[in-house]
Amino acid sequence: MSMSNIATYPSSQVEAIHGNFQGKDIVSLDQFTVGDLYMVFNLALKMRELVLTSEPSQILAGKVISLLFFEPSSRTFGSFASAVKRLGGQTLDIQNPEMVTSVHKGETFEDTIRVFEAYSDAIVLRHPRSGAARAAAEAARFVPVINAGDGTNEHPTQTLLDLCTLYERFGRLDHLTGLLVGDALNSRTMHSLMRGLSLFEHNRLYILAPDQLRLARDDFVACRSRGIELIEIASEREIPTNCDFWYWTRIQQERFSSPEEYQKLAAGKFVATPELLARYAKKDMILMDPLPRVGTIDPMVDQDERAVYLRSQIRNGLYTRMALLALIMGRA
Amino acid sequence: MSMSNIATYPSSQVEAIHGNFQGKDIVSLDQFTVGDLYMVFNLALKMRELVLTSEPSQILAGKVISLLFFEPSSRTFGSFASAVKRLGGQTLDIQNPEMVTSVHKGETFEDTIRVFEAYSDAIVLRHPRSGAARAAAEAARFVPVINAGDGTNEHPTQTLLDLCTLYERFGRLDHLTGLLVGDALNSRTMHSLMRGLSLFEHNRLYILAPDQLRLARDDFVACRSRGIELIEIASEREIPTNCDFWYWTRIQQERFSSPEEYQKLAAGKFVATPELLARYAKKDMILMDPLPRVGTIDPMVDQDERAVYLRSQIRNGLYTRMALLALIMGRA
Amino acid sequence: MSMSNIATYPSSQVEAIHGNFQGKDIVSLDQFTVGDLYMVFNLALKMRELVLTSEPSQILAGKVISLLFFEPSSRTFGSFASAVKRLGGQTLDIQNPEMVTSVHKGETFEDTIRVFEAYSDAIVLRHPRSGAARAAAEAARFVPVINAGDGTNEHPTQTLLDLCTLYERFGRLDHLTGLLVGDALNSRTMHSLMRGLSLFEHNRLYILAPDQLRLARDDFVACRSRGIELIEIASEREIPTNCDFWYWTRIQQERFSSPEEYQKLAAGKFVATPELLARYAKKDMILMDPLPRVGTIDPMVDQDERAVYLRSQIRNGLYTRMALLALIMGRA
Repeated sequence: MSMSNIATYPSSQVEAIHGNFQGKDIVSLDQFTVGDLYMVFNLALKMRELVLTSEPSQILAGKVISLLFFEPSSRTFGSFASAVKRLGGQTLDIQNPEMVTSVHKGETFEDTIRVFEAYSDAIVLRHPRSGAARAAAEAARFVPVINAGDGTNEHPTQTLLDLCTLYERFGRLDHLTGLLVGDALNSRTMHSLMRGLSLFEHNRLYILAPDQLRLARDDFVACRSRGIELIEIASEREIPTNCDFWYWTRIQQERFSSPEEYQKLAAGKFVATPELLARYAKKDMILMDPLPRVGTIDPMVDQDERAVYLRSQIRNGLYTRMALLALIMGRA
Repeated sequence: MSMSNIATYPSSQVEAIHGNFQGKDIVSLDQFTVGDLYMVFNLALKMRELVLTSEPSQILAGKVISLLFFEPSSRTFGSFASAVKRLGGQTLDIQNPEMVTSVHKGETFEDTIRVFEAYSDAIVLRHPRSGAARAAAEAARFVPVINAGDGTNEHPTQTLLDLCTLYERFGRLDHLTGLLVGDALNSRTMHSLMRGLSLFEHNRLYILAPDQLRLARDDFVACRSRGIELIEIASEREIPTNCDFWYWTRIQQERFSSPEEYQKLAAGKFVATPELLARYAKKDMILMDPLPRVGTIDPMVDQDERAVYLRSQIRNGLYTRMALLALIMGRA
Repeated sequence: MSMSNIATYPSSQVEAIHGNFQGKDIVSLDQFTVGDLYMVFNLALKMRELVLTSEPSQILAGKVISLLFFEPSSRTFGSFASAVKRLGGQTLDIQNPEMVTSVHKGETFEDTIRVFEAYSDAIVLRHPRSGAARAAAEAARFVPVINAGDGTNEHPTQTLLDLCTLYERFGRLDHLTGLLVGDALNSRTMHSLMRGLSLFEHNRLYILAPDQLRLARDDFVACRSRGIELIEIASEREIPTNCDFWYWTRIQQERFSSPEEYQKLAAGKFVATPELLARYAKKDMILMDPLPRVGTIDPMVDQDERAVYLRSQIRNGLYTRMALLALIMGRA
């Protein structure tokens, strides 16, 4: 497909995709079939070309998308805003929770959603409360709602960009071996990635976490029952050298019973360094981090070609969001 | 007039309207003649079609409008921002009063206005001080200023959307019978609606308010002298069954001498319920609320077709603002 | 060059300019040669025509520019936002430092810059820390960074607009005689203007400051060694009547050892009044102020045609920023 085709956008393939997504809410990763995911990622990679050529797009021309952020999130906000604008659409920015003034006057969440529904063609919602995205999708009857993170519940486009980064690199999402490091007990991004990879066959994940933050037994069992091969390891020395990717998440001090505990058990201990890569990482693997990176990856690693966190991984956030928006509400 | 005509916009009728509005400030409802109002509303209903077709508009192409909000107001901000963008224009968003940093350094209001005048083709102003819109209109010599609410003084586009909602439903703004419920003493929206309806003939309004918040004698007399038939009623049981519309406004606890007074005299007493509609409302009336709705209308009423507050009423805010912007500064 | 040529933009002259600026960071005034400055100012004056015709431009069509403001600044933000939008581009607005949430989680400044680099085609940075612009330019490898003020260090576009205002009025930047009034010890804008004018030949500047806020000896010597003729004067009565421009900056009370000192030595003493202009200013001079104006210029002077601060000076901020953006990243 040539670039001009993407920019002008009508194509038989895209129309076919529209059949699945047009006008749909995006609340949870569970909505996506394997086929859906490959569709999104293939379109995302086309969006990459669109951005690189810097050709103005008309895919969302005339569309106004509300970015309704009840809690601030500069990266997610920036990524969605950029996605809308790169497709030729416009945003209605409510970045600051205090701006949603009617809420302060006692308006219900549902009323607020229905007001912004009247002003825009879609609502991208960020909210600190679990389940807010589902409630918004039910309140909004005429426009789609996209979940940009609702508390500890879900942040589906974060998982999509992680999967897209693996797909971009390996051309598949099955038969992958990965290492997940960090707070296996609490990390939403880690749990979601495991869930996403469980849709595909023959994936094997090694989990490295502080002893206090090991994967909960229920999560372990649930993940295995969905077909992921899970192996917990106890130290860096057990990292296998055949991993296709490392996925590194930050460990928050608040998770420990005391600062001393944190200092003793975790601080500076779960860090990806050049030495670690030299010893355990193969040449064609990739090193990922959902960002912000706080004590997870030594900046000395940034120059390594395998370090994709500040390159394709963050960019794929933009491309997958562009793809989703185009599928949900792009002009045919 | 077909939709494509609206989108491309040059038409003899629109040019004629331009004669009245082009480049004008919108500070007060008093600026509008009956003819002006019908013009705005007829164009607003055409804007509704434009939005429904989702056709990109060029009416404000190349125009930059400053949304200068010295106090936050999510709905008014969202509505104006959407109106500008749906017409193909762009906004310069100053949503947060703390952002107007030069004010904090001691700059005069007039200087701030003249700075933003230099950056944009119009200024939409929200300000907590009565009279700020008039002062801004005088300071800005080259671009129009639109009042988006200046303290307790005026919020002319709120009244326009209320009138437009009545016009959309009944095809006229005369010979209407309405019920106004709430804080008749203080409610700016209620006072403005009465004033707006007094421009048209043979309108009759029933007023239901807590005893402590009855319409001030001066307001009563002024309104009557302008030709409105006003009837105060003392309880729900006196609501006549022939009303064309109910307009429900919230009663703020702070208006009472004590929380106990509020609890005793108002809390839960002036609420539109399904039972009330069943008993007193005719089939073809409409139920309105300027929003946010706080203790005014039972959510059980939302499904009723006569409940327009979260449907056409809020949408007409968008359409009337689009119409005004087009009339003031649209491309011929 | 006709207006339509500017709007469509490909021209041999502009391509030639591109040679110098395309893709470049703008961190410091020191980057500019005399030729560069004249190029920017000539294009800025063409941008003035573009704005006056209100013709939609495509120069930044399809481009997204991050306005990353780590401290609020309503005028600089508004000016850059307007510049981008008047050229047909879009902005990604991060106006509020608290919005840069990842920073609060411990992300490094460099990571934040690289994230926004991935979302946009350029970054306009405002930051309270001296040297932040240089650091950002080094972190961002693929997109240009424009310094919109980094602490007490530099605010190059402020100086460009001051110089542009002189160039617009006099058609040259050499052989000018000026009066600089205010806090000669600390004023960044005053220092930068002296530095900018030192690039051109035969300029003479009279400096009038409170005794406590006289130009530092080092600055005096450095400026003279670069070829500016500097003359300190001790009172208004020494203002020569042949000045081409007056440049008035505010004196902050915090600079004095006590409020009493300020009241005694500066308050109300360094103010441009109609009387002062009548006595010392020639007919074809201009009166400038970098704004916000706080106790610097009597509002009675505003009507005087020589008072350009709220007219061409503030507008030239828009035009020079448009010119810079077009040169750095406009479509050829």
